[in-house]
Amino acid sequence: VHAPADRIVVCSGFAQGLALVCAAVGAGRFATEAFGHASHRAILAEGREVSALTVDDEGACVDELARERAVLLTPAHQFPLGAPLAAHRRVAVAEWARERGGVVVEDDYDGEFRYDRQPLGALQALAPERVVYAGTASKSLAPALRLGWIVVPEHLLEPVLAARTRTDGPGAIDQLALADFIASSAYDRQVRRMRLVYRRRRDALVRALGRDRVRGIDAGLQLVVDVPDEGEAVANAGARGVAVEGLAAYRLGAQAHAPALVVGYGTPPEHAFTTAVARLRAALS
Amino acid sequence: VHAPADRIVVCSGFAQGLALVCAAVGAGRFATEAFGHASHRAILAEGREVSALTVDDEGACVDELARERAVLLTPAHQFPLGAPLAAHRRVAVAEWARERGGVVVEDDYDGEFRYDRQPLGALQALAPERVVYAGTASKSLAPALRLGWIVVPEHLLEPVLAARTRTDGPGAIDQLALADFIASSAYDRQVRRMRLVYRRRRDALVRALGRDRVRGIDAGLQLVVDVPDEGEAVANAGARGVAVEGLAAYRLGAQAHAPALVVGYGTPPEHAFTTAVARLRAALS
Repeated sequence: VHAPADRIVVCSGFAQGLALVCAAVGAGRFATEAFGHASHRAILAEGREVSALTVDDEGACVDELARERAVLLTPAHQFPLGAPLAAHRRVAVAEWARERGGVVVEDDYDGEFRYDRQPLGALQALAPERVVYAGTASKSLAPALRLGWIVVPEHLLEPVLAARTRTDGPGAIDQLALADFIASSAYDRQVRRMRLVYRRRRDALVRALGRDRVRGIDAGLQLVVDVPDEGEAVANAGARGVAVEGLAAYRLGAQAHAPALVVGYGTPPEHAFTTAVARLRAALS
Repeated sequence: VHAPADRIVVCSGFAQGLALVCAAVGAGRFATEAFGHASHRAILAEGREVSALTVDDEGACVDELARERAVLLTPAHQFPLGAPLAAHRRVAVAEWARERGGVVVEDDYDGEFRYDRQPLGALQALAPERVVYAGTASKSLAPALRLGWIVVPEHLLEPVLAARTRTDGPGAIDQLALADFIASSAYDRQVRRMRLVYRRRRDALVRALGRDRVRGIDAGLQLVVDVPDEGEAVANAGARGVAVEGLAAYRLGAQAHAPALVVGYGTPPEHAFTTAVARLRAALS
């Protein structure tokens, strides 16, 4: 990530960061991925139209971008389907942004947590003047902190800062504590520790569910598992006390998809994880 | 304050609280006081017209309200002029809100800090279904916390919470720490302690500047002092290292005013306060 200190804006998590960028970019159609968080789509949809890009094994189909003013992407690990955005699409979306004056929001919600592959590098590095990079401490530390950061291209910095003044942000005490945590290397140690924890969880989950049924497993804190019937699988899991959602709950566009569950494995406390995996396995077999 | 727990929304300070109310109320003209914070007026002015109510010795002239959708007031201690909103005006603005379906935002920025008078009670108690009460920990604890709260009438609760979801808020850890601080009575002790500190500061400042030159002194963390020329007085104080602003810096409407300085006395560290008062006195004499 290309991040001079004066371009980093700390915010109360990704939702505020996205809202700041929306306020700074102003009117015009936004695009997002056909699968993702409905709450993020709702932020984009405040007073504007939103289009949905098809998602396939190479991530979002960025060739569908046309007259959009901006696009929200999860290039490292498409949420929730799990593919990284392919190299040729990274180049293509950077070109689109430069030619059309578009803005790309790179939601790097789990960039620290890859397991079986080399780091991909941020899309932002390809076009630092067109891409807003968004990072978060929600997965590495805790969502309860409400601490995230956006790295903002120069032409958006003034309107982003003006919007932040109007809407407040996280307290200076939390920000200083995080800065100290990072400067002391304790943050890096924490990320490495959590990467091991999450990797072990992923391995246990893949073993339990079967390698051939799961997708999106080489990074992140969630995977997708194929099921014959989403509603039935969600109900079976729920009856055993395991909360999962069908892929349909993350569908933001019209793209059809095979029935599947999205299984997040970051949340359960350590002592409950093994039981939760066993129960999910029983529910799906 | 009439504040059932399920109507209290914790937010990152007053600016976020006001932005949430603006999002919930939607379009339509807002009113504010002719003197106040330009940053608050800027929040109101996002996509709508703003009118300014004349301020006199009884606070804001609420009889000027007509077709406004909402009004922002500082009833306990008009900021920065210092008058409490008179009882007959409190009744009148509550009636206006009920008859017209208007919304009143009561910015109780310094309600805990009154010195020579009985507590006035919140305007919100007169019309809990029309008034949003806004409190803050910025003066009692520290602005660096970015913690405030709004008490929201039932009809605005859902849109306020929806707006808060879209824009994030303070971290749960800070909120839980504050809740614990309040439940243990430590917050009340802190407020009483700070009230004494601020009262002593006010007394020292009034003695130094002369009782007949100052206004708005029976509450709050700022007072107004008459000067022959605002620009000159600000420059003289600045030359002695004392940062004060002219009343003109807080003028949001067209209302004329006699030249005066607004002197905040909450901010200087304890060890610097006596020197700051002596320097201000020298600058103004």
